Amino acid sequence: MMPEDREAVLAVVEATDMFTPAELFFAREQVDIYLHQPQQQDYFLVVVENESSKIVGFMSYGPTPLTEGTYDLYWMAVSREEQGRGYGKELVRWLEKKVKDAAGRMILIETSSQPKYESTRRFYLGLDYQEVSRIPDFYKPGDDRITYVKYFGSKESTEKWKKSGNSY
Amino acid sequence: MMPEDREAVLAVVEATDMFTPAELFFAREQVDIYLHQPQQQDYFLVVVENESSKIVGFMSYGPTPLTEGTYDLYWMAVSREEQGRGYGKELVRWLEKKVKDAAGRMILIETSSQPKYESTRRFYLGLDYQEVSRIPDFYKPGDDRITYVKYFGSKESTEKWKKSGNSY
Repeated sequence: MMPEDREAVLAVVEATDMFTPAELFFAREQVDIYLHQPQQQDYFLVVVENESSKIVGFMSYGPTPLTEGTYDLYWMAVSREEQGRGYGKELVRWLEKKVKDAAGRMILIETSSQPKYESTRRFYLGLDYQEVSRIPDFYKPGDDRITYVKYFGSKESTEKWKKSGNSY
Repeated sequence: MMPEDREAVLAVVEATDMFTPAELFFAREQVDIYLHQPQQQDYFLVVVENESSKIVGFMSYGPTPLTEGTYDLYWMAVSREEQGRGYGKELVRWLEKKVKDAAGRMILIETSSQPKYESTRRFYLGLDYQEVSRIPDFYKPGDDRITYVKYFGSKESTEKWKKSGNSY
C-alpha cells in the first residue's frame, strides 16, 4: 500500500458495511500510522487491484510480537461489488506464500461469532483454516472471539496438532 | 506508576530472570511509551510497594481494543526476593476491583506453556482463573500460548460459560 492508496483503501473498508464506527476509527488510525509513522509499525498493509487497476481489497498482517514464526492476519476487506471473484483468496494465498518463504510456522486469524461474519468464517474454513480457540463473550455479551489457524512446515507442529484431536 | 519509578520497575522485571532479551526490550519500550507518550497509550502500569515503600512488583493492563468490557492483564512481575508474600495477589485483586467497578465483564491473561512458567500458571489457577484457550506452538515450537479468563457480573456470560462444559 502506498500513500496515494489511502482514500481507495478506506473506501473499500467503509463500503463493506461490516465495521462499527469504533472499528472504522481503528482502521483509519492503523492506515495512517502505517503510512506516516513507519518506525512504529509492526504490521503491513497490502492491496489487491482488479483488471482496471482499481483497488478492490486490502489486508493487514504482521509477525506476531514475541513469537518465532507466527503471523497474524489482522484485517481484510474486499469491496462488496467485487466479492466472490477470488480477490480475498488471492490476498490470503499471497500471505501464505510470504509466510512460508520467511519460514513462518503459522497464520492466525481472529474473527467474531456474530451472524454477519458467517461468510467470513466460511471463507477461512474453505481455505483450510481450523478453529483453534473460542473465547465466549469476548467482544461483547453473545459475541465470541474465534481464532483460526493454519500451520506450515514444521512436522513436529503438525504431529502435535493432530494428536490434540484436531484435523489438519 | 510515575516517571521516577522507571528504574525500580525495570529492575524488578530484570531481576525475575523470567524474560528473554526480546521481552525485556519490549517491556522497556512499553514503560517508556507509558511514561512519555501517553497519547499513544492503551494500557496502564501500576506498581506495588512493600512496607518500606520500595517497589517490589508491577502490572500492566488495559481494556482490550474493540471489545466492550474485556480487559487484558498484559504483564506482571514481582521481585524474586519478595515472591510468596502476596504482592502478586494484591495486584490481581486490585485489577479485579477496578474492572468490576468499571462494569467490566472479564479479565484475560496470556501465558506460556513452558516449564519455567509453571508457578505463574498455578498462581492464576489459584486465583480462580480458568484456561479458556491454548494455541499449540504459538510462541515457538513446543511453546503454547495459554489464555486464562475470569468472568464477572453478567449472568448470561456465566451461564453460557458453564454450558460450554467448563467450570467457573
